[in-house]
Amino acid sequence: MTTYTTPHKDLQFVLHNLLKVSEQDIPGFADLDRDFTGAVLEEVGKLSSDVLHPLNAVGDTEGCTLENGIVRTPKGFKEAFDQVREGGWTALDAEEQYGGQGLPYVMHSAVNEPMVSANMAFNMYQGLTHGAYSAIRVHGSEQQKDTYLPKLASCEWTGTMNLTEPHCGTDLGLMRTKAVPQEDGSYKVTGQKIFISAGDHDMSDNIIHLVLAKIPGGPDGIKGVSLFIVPKFIVKDDGSLGERNGVSVGKIEEKMGIHGNSTCVMNYDEATGYLIGEEHKGMRAMFVMMNEARLGVGLQGYAQAEVAYQNAVAYANDRLQGRDVTGAKNPDGPADPLIVHPDIRRNLMDQKSFTEGARAFTMWGAYLIDRAHKMDDAQADGLISLMTPVLKGFLTDKGFEYATAAQQVYGGHGYIEEWGMSQFARDARIAMIYEGANGVQALDLVGRKLAVDGGKHLMGFFEMIKSFIKENEGNEALKADFLDPLKAASKDMQAAAMYFMGAMKNPNNALAGSYDFMHLMGHVCLGYMWAQMGKAAMEALEAGESDTAFYQTKIATGRYYMARQLPATAMHLARINTGADTVMALEAANF
Amino acid sequence: MTTYTTPHKDLQFVLHNLLKVSEQDIPGFADLDRDFTGAVLEEVGKLSSDVLHPLNAVGDTEGCTLENGIVRTPKGFKEAFDQVREGGWTALDAEEQYGGQGLPYVMHSAVNEPMVSANMAFNMYQGLTHGAYSAIRVHGSEQQKDTYLPKLASCEWTGTMNLTEPHCGTDLGLMRTKAVPQEDGSYKVTGQKIFISAGDHDMSDNIIHLVLAKIPGGPDGIKGVSLFIVPKFIVKDDGSLGERNGVSVGKIEEKMGIHGNSTCVMNYDEATGYLIGEEHKGMRAMFVMMNEARLGVGLQGYAQAEVAYQNAVAYANDRLQGRDVTGAKNPDGPADPLIVHPDIRRNLMDQKSFTEGARAFTMWGAYLIDRAHKMDDAQADGLISLMTPVLKGFLTDKGFEYATAAQQVYGGHGYIEEWGMSQFARDARIAMIYEGANGVQALDLVGRKLAVDGGKHLMGFFEMIKSFIKENEGNEALKADFLDPLKAASKDMQAAAMYFMGAMKNPNNALAGSYDFMHLMGHVCLGYMWAQMGKAAMEALEAGESDTAFYQTKIATGRYYMARQLPATAMHLARINTGADTVMALEAANF
Repeated sequence: MTTYTTPHKDLQFVLHNLLKVSEQDIPGFADLDRDFTGAVLEEVGKLSSDVLHPLNAVGDTEGCTLENGIVRTPKGFKEAFDQVREGGWTALDAEEQYGGQGLPYVMHSAVNEPMVSANMAFNMYQGLTHGAYSAIRVHGSEQQKDTYLPKLASCEWTGTMNLTEPHCGTDLGLMRTKAVPQEDGSYKVTGQKIFISAGDHDMSDNIIHLVLAKIPGGPDGIKGVSLFIVPKFIVKDDGSLGERNGVSVGKIEEKMGIHGNSTCVMNYDEATGYLIGEEHKGMRAMFVMMNEARLGVGLQGYAQAEVAYQNAVAYANDRLQGRDVTGAKNPDGPADPLIVHPDIRRNLMDQKSFTEGARAFTMWGAYLIDRAHKMDDAQADGLISLMTPVLKGFLTDKGFEYATAAQQVYGGHGYIEEWGMSQFARDARIAMIYEGANGVQALDLVGRKLAVDGGKHLMGFFEMIKSFIKENEGNEALKADFLDPLKAASKDMQAAAMYFMGAMKNPNNALAGSYDFMHLMGHVCLGYMWAQMGKAAMEALEAGESDTAFYQTKIATGRYYMARQLPATAMHLARINTGADTVMALEAANF
Repeated sequence: MTTYTTPHKDLQFVLHNLLKVSEQDIPGFADLDRDFTGAVLEEVGKLSSDVLHPLNAVGDTEGCTLENGIVRTPKGFKEAFDQVREGGWTALDAEEQYGGQGLPYVMHSAVNEPMVSANMAFNMYQGLTHGAYSAIRVHGSEQQKDTYLPKLASCEWTGTMNLTEPHCGTDLGLMRTKAVPQEDGSYKVTGQKIFISAGDHDMSDNIIHLVLAKIPGGPDGIKGVSLFIVPKFIVKDDGSLGERNGVSVGKIEEKMGIHGNSTCVMNYDEATGYLIGEEHKGMRAMFVMMNEARLGVGLQGYAQAEVAYQNAVAYANDRLQGRDVTGAKNPDGPADPLIVHPDIRRNLMDQKSFTEGARAFTMWGAYLIDRAHKMDDAQADGLISLMTPVLKGFLTDKGFEYATAAQQVYGGHGYIEEWGMSQFARDARIAMIYEGANGVQALDLVGRKLAVDGGKHLMGFFEMIKSFIKENEGNEALKADFLDPLKAASKDMQAAAMYFMGAMKNPNNALAGSYDFMHLMGHVCLGYMWAQMGKAAMEALEAGESDTAFYQTKIATGRYYMARQLPATAMHLARINTGADTVMALEAANF
């Protein structure tokens, strides 16, 4: 019942008017001109609307099934996966030597949005593969790269990430899975891993499991964790597939959503594994991928809000209910469409101003990753490390909130599965949990990232905002609606950071405010994006661009965000300033 | 996997320390002494924990099925319903002449909370019956009352409410269901109704449908709507059941949650109906029940948050993950329990301080209903009418938010259905939608309720708060932590009300802020409850009550609410003050 259309103009606006990608001095960026990115988005738009989105409800309803140890994906998934593969969509930013197109990560992200909006559960099969590719590319041996990367780039083989065990998720130091060294240099991996997305399925010839495990005799805790390649089928020296490895599916989990993705309990029983990188340095290998993976999950958050928003708008225009209090807008009909009502508008504008701000923030993050990786830019690397928990935590919290808000526009029909709005909310819910639950993101932000390099990256971010405001102060159109609110919100963020610095004597005072800080910073980031987008839209209008309605809408949407969303920063600051006293007041027994 | 325990002490605290029910001059209240209410809560607690809650997951997993036109409820529901019936729990506040126990509504509400927490979907069968009972009691003829009320009180027969049709929910004036008068004084009812909770099932001998329909030739729109009794089986003059009426189940809806309740499409095909009250005055009959029904839905909101909270606390104490940053709390174990972490505390305190405040607010609302109904107290009636949209809208929004927050404590396990946390969130979601979607509650509040009787009831509420603050200003322990924040929040609410009054020229300026006002007022109401509960707990400690940990925890939880939740009022005011400009800026085509 739902539909999806790629926000082509909005993506182009972010790439070209905001980030001006083709003018950047980053290797590969010069090719990203407006025609090229437009053509790519056009193609992925068709795929997303026509192939992937129609399978979204199918995946939710059918789910995955385990038959005689083999996972069957929902009807149509395999054919669609073939199409995605054949279109080269899985290898967009993979290196050319491994069969990829070598495009920047920002382009991968721009293409990823429509695919995730259209069918989040489906897209995870290639998303996890992308993660496995990156881990092997950065830390694998040349032989491992040659063996696995071409197949992962093309998704002929898919990948998985195996971290969690029944008794440990965030605290991976408690891990029990063992990897025992063998004489031939390989390891025998034994243990149970849970919540393994795309753990098994029937859409690829092989599955390359990346498994964290402990080598007996190594250091205790997290420092004794190593990363292994454990293929479902052993890859022979000539590249062909050999015998089945000792890895099997224990069961498929029944989840709240993303039913189209097979979330498996995986049992490793003396499975042959190959060490990636150094012994006991597994977490380092994982962390390399984390900025990308977490940005990808943040994207899932707003991408679900986007598709939910599109359907809510359609319903609000279609459904006749009540009359505009200022006078009938559809006098010949039995009632006016929902969209005349101010509270429906309020709800839709909340959604719209969030998703557009989030898109800009995410693509900016992807651009920073390109700058960091392709130019060894330490400043960009520091900045994206600082932003990563915000991208993940804030965008997924809000993404779920607004997917739910879109569902609300449908009234009772929003609660009926047939209408499809429930799925967006249920699917979006997982993004707040996996790849580090959002509370852990907040802890990472306040407990680690703020203080990195003496707080240099945080200061750098404040400086960016300050400079932007200063440079544009003379712009009357921008000042009251964009710059002044941004300045106020940024001050709230600085005050919160100051409070945390003063709280060092009792770290709980900072940590009790970590979640609020993540949201406060999220609003400042989106406010900063909107101020820049407001400026860019004004410039486009001044330059005589013909699509005036688009740019005027962009400005109006930004004004909404600045006026009605940014005031949240003061509330978060007020909560932060109360410290840990009321938070930690109770004995555990008195909860 | 989940458990539930009635918050016995907390309910007793609200009834006796806060509301001092047995000291009230309302008929029937003198009997509500601490021993009596304690004994009743003890019994309903056993029923809820031992009988109803174990069926909660069963209801979710099995759902209801339609077999040959008859709805089958999940395994165990019928036996449990018999137990509820036999225990007299369905007739607690029904009149004694109809077989009830004649207890006040506040007692019904106190007993309702555990039953709803334990199994929301199950409890709806009797909840809807309670609504049907009330409608017939207030508007039915003597003969109708004698025929239906005893059976509805005992739930030998259950009831339903039929309002929504496929093309109209909120805007009932668009209704198409027809009721054609017959010579014998009855009507032939024809049409389709959707989203009919408990529309059919196998747990009672008869089902009494209350159906809104239009009598041909009557006034257009909402003024031409009448209310009818349409029994599933015609009741003969001697009270025995006659032939099957022309009403059938079209299908059972697949919903996001409350699967244990049969939500039906009901088809009426010249079904025999009996007018309740006057022709074309159907909405008046519905509105009588609305305060009660909406309070009941608000209760569902916080009751789901309560059971979710209880399980989150258990998990946070049980799950070992990470270490307390200020020093290990479980040094002999592999890690500390989750509850040592400040952000887990922050989350749990948000939940706890909300549910306890919401419980007080709801029981106060129920007390106002008793005062209004049993004493014809116009002031209480005006106040509860004003509070009703807030009770419904604020408590269900927050109830869902915190049920989701409790799910988050479980990390990945929160997303797996087997653990039960997803169900609480999915079930709670409906409460934001039915019985008037929350946007409609906000519209009712700002568009109607604020101005009733020249704003007298709103002013009365402000006066209550002012008087409370003034009376207690000398109480040092109360002032800084409770009275000052309450004063600030109340000022925000007054400023918002003033803004709305000034906005009368453009009603959109008020309506664009209606949702924020509903939340702003919700916080003020809970803040007012907490200030009174803080005082009551201090008094109990001064009086030398032995359970000091309970009262100290109550005070600490209140301090948390005042310090960390009430600051939201300023954000809502800031949003309200921006008016409709940014909300209404876009053409519908530009969303």
